[in-house]
Amino acid sequence: MQQAFHEIIVKTKGRGFYDFTEKTLDWLSKQKIKNGILNINILHTSASLVIQENADPDVLHDLKNFFDKLVPMDDKLYKHTTEGKDDMPAHIKSALTNNQLIFSLKNKKLLLGTWQGLYLFEHRLKQHTRILSHHLIGD
Amino acid sequence: MQQAFHEIIVKTKGRGFYDFTEKTLDWLSKQKIKNGILNINILHTSASLVIQENADPDVLHDLKNFFDKLVPMDDKLYKHTTEGKDDMPAHIKSALTNNQLIFSLKNKKLLLGTWQGLYLFEHRLKQHTRILSHHLIGD
Amino acid sequence: MQQAFHEIIVKTKGRGFYDFTEKTLDWLSKQKIKNGILNINILHTSASLVIQENADPDVLHDLKNFFDKLVPMDDKLYKHTTEGKDDMPAHIKSALTNNQLIFSLKNKKLLLGTWQGLYLFEHRLKQHTRILSHHLIGD
Repeated sequence: MQQAFHEIIVKTKGRGFYDFTEKTLDWLSKQKIKNGILNINILHTSASLVIQENADPDVLHDLKNFFDKLVPMDDKLYKHTTEGKDDMPAHIKSALTNNQLIFSLKNKKLLLGTWQGLYLFEHRLKQHTRILSHHLIGD
Repeated sequence: MQQAFHEIIVKTKGRGFYDFTEKTLDWLSKQKIKNGILNINILHTSASLVIQENADPDVLHDLKNFFDKLVPMDDKLYKHTTEGKDDMPAHIKSALTNNQLIFSLKNKKLLLGTWQGLYLFEHRLKQHTRILSHHLIGD
Repeated sequence: MQQAFHEIIVKTKGRGFYDFTEKTLDWLSKQKIKNGILNINILHTSASLVIQENADPDVLHDLKNFFDKLVPMDDKLYKHTTEGKDDMPAHIKSALTNNQLIFSLKNKKLLLGTWQGLYLFEHRLKQHTRILSHHLIGD
């Protein structure tokens, strides 16, 4: 059994989706492990991870819009307001999506659907530096 | 360490829940691995995976109904409408649920609660063939 | 490769968040495995798991409040009402959050963000005893 650890840094500029698929695939291509599990954790609770369609950018637009309407930035709705009007909605959107993604690697190929991309879903308004822990275990 | 890969195909006929627990347990029973991690990924972004109660079918009815109301099929709400009125709601419902499920296998037994079943949650209206990647790693 | 299994029991008293981070870290500290994957499953479908900020308790208050409003306890909305007005909302909230959490362990340290805590999210009104399956695989 072998294990490899890595961190991918994504610098975000406001709410929306940031595709990191290529960064993950690039790191995987340099590893010796052929078959195994890839575990990706985001080490923050005001941004999250999703797998989504990478074909039509309108999908990401509509997805962002849906979450913005479902979880409005309205200080009257929340007690936690000291970190900005976008912080509590960010925590809620994170709870509604994912803090981690897990994939299988088979013969050096990540098992992803044809149209699936890996996205960081940023929920804060200002610039943030997000750390995505990558961990591959296999042989 | 040993690893085993498998694909389970689920043919869906419209929105709703499709129980694949037995198919997964049947495949597991034929593997040599006694203890390990089972990773299941759905290779699509318009259907998803959930663990839910398998006792009262009304639970699945109410669950489907909740998501249909939360994410309506209404072309006025979305830019991405070219693939049908059900496609963008499908992507949103997928983001709100799961693309993967992970379980522990102990002494050849999948660690599931008494009332837990594994379901594919189909969000599209027409027939679809869904691929569920299964990957067991352990010894 | 080594594997270790464990169960953490959390006794809940009504809806809300129960921090079990310390219990998990305490168990991990006693294991021989230095690097690996930790898989945590909740063996119930009316309570769930989330990673959330552990700094300001108002975050958890607002998060609970959001889910209570999004998924109201109103028997007119559901067919599944025989197990109490809180049971069907509990199943829906579980589907919207997580049944499992997966983490990486590196040099005996769980890779968690500075402000991340592990929470059981109880959705039922009465007292419940919840089982959290823990499984560590690595070397």
